[in-house]
Amino acid sequence: MVEKGLFIVIEGIDNSGKTTQSGLLKEYLEGKGLPVVQTREPGGTEVGEEIREILLKKRDKMMDPQAQALLFYAARVEFLKSIVEPNLSSGVTVITDRFEPSTYVYQGYTQGATDFVQSLSRLVVGYKYQPDVSVVLDIPAEESFRRRSNEDRQGQDLIYEHQGLEFSKKLREGYLEYTKEHPNAVLLDGTEDIKSVHERIILCIKPKLIAKGIRGIHV
Amino acid sequence: MVEKGLFIVIEGIDNSGKTTQSGLLKEYLEGKGLPVVQTREPGGTEVGEEIREILLKKRDKMMDPQAQALLFYAARVEFLKSIVEPNLSSGVTVITDRFEPSTYVYQGYTQGATDFVQSLSRLVVGYKYQPDVSVVLDIPAEESFRRRSNEDRQGQDLIYEHQGLEFSKKLREGYLEYTKEHPNAVLLDGTEDIKSVHERIILCIKPKLIAKGIRGIHV
Repeated sequence: MVEKGLFIVIEGIDNSGKTTQSGLLKEYLEGKGLPVVQTREPGGTEVGEEIREILLKKRDKMMDPQAQALLFYAARVEFLKSIVEPNLSSGVTVITDRFEPSTYVYQGYTQGATDFVQSLSRLVVGYKYQPDVSVVLDIPAEESFRRRSNEDRQGQDLIYEHQGLEFSKKLREGYLEYTKEHPNAVLLDGTEDIKSVHERIILCIKPKLIAKGIRGIHV
Repeated sequence: MVEKGLFIVIEGIDNSGKTTQSGLLKEYLEGKGLPVVQTREPGGTEVGEEIREILLKKRDKMMDPQAQALLFYAARVEFLKSIVEPNLSSGVTVITDRFEPSTYVYQGYTQGATDFVQSLSRLVVGYKYQPDVSVVLDIPAEESFRRRSNEDRQGQDLIYEHQGLEFSKKLREGYLEYTKEHPNAVLLDGTEDIKSVHERIILCIKPKLIAKGIRGIHV
């Protein structure tokens, strides 16, 4: 039987360095001989992309947060069953840019629907799809705004961008709350230079690699 | 304070007479002086229509039943908050073609996801949006096929039409199971002539009208 791949989640507000760090981590793990897929959520599946369009569409009236959360979870089911599960079970490590913490923060915490999102999480994700490691890259809202370039504005924050800096501050607060409530999630300072953040992420993942007996990994 | 409108659900497999009976019931209630809106689910809202498109799209691989159910519930939240709730609370009666029983039957019962659908139902709809009356028009699967005309094939059954008569039989079975498990839902013989079915539906609704003291209603 093939040993299961690792399920790794990289999280944080827009421009916190998720994609960069996911890419560096992928290179590192591949260098250790592990097969890796790098993906993002929602999206990555046909249905996920279609749902993403509904969520990103500009509307006169903002969609109800419960409806938003249900759409994210619909995309999540497809994501888990068509990307995460088949890869993990054939021994491939999955690194995903955004997962459960985003729904907790964007649809739950900032829109007063935390209990609803947590109930959905238990129902849809449960214990079955708990990540091995969940890393939250923490940067101040002001830093997210500073790092923003025009070419780069495609993130989830775009749905809420009219809400401005105050809303981004609340998003960050939501991530801090998430890591408090979920001891498996690790909060890292995302304002450090890219190499330092990368090294810290590796430190978080090493225990899991050692447990798997991956060659070339030392404490 | 305005008295709340009635929330009435008309259900059944495709071609069981839902739209016809909804229309007749609307006329009847309006004749009694009640303001009525007639609607259908999913759809009726902008987001609902977009979700409906995702659900109806032909795909190489059928969407996971949990993802389907989550999409239906996302549309349901919008439907409840933008159509049902404002109408009921301003005294308007809402008649809807399809609601919870459809999700129970199409995504739950026939696809082995009944528990999941029931959990979602408790979470999203709960006691808050229980219909006053839920009528299931029961016809044999063969009758549904006989009544089918080419112009008329837009129903939810379309998603599953390649599954043929056996699948339609299972849908009917699902509705029978639903009414067993939900004593508030009334099963009516939909093979009777239109007028007889209409009269039976009125019999189901009369107690609610009498409770409201609507003029011209006698037992």
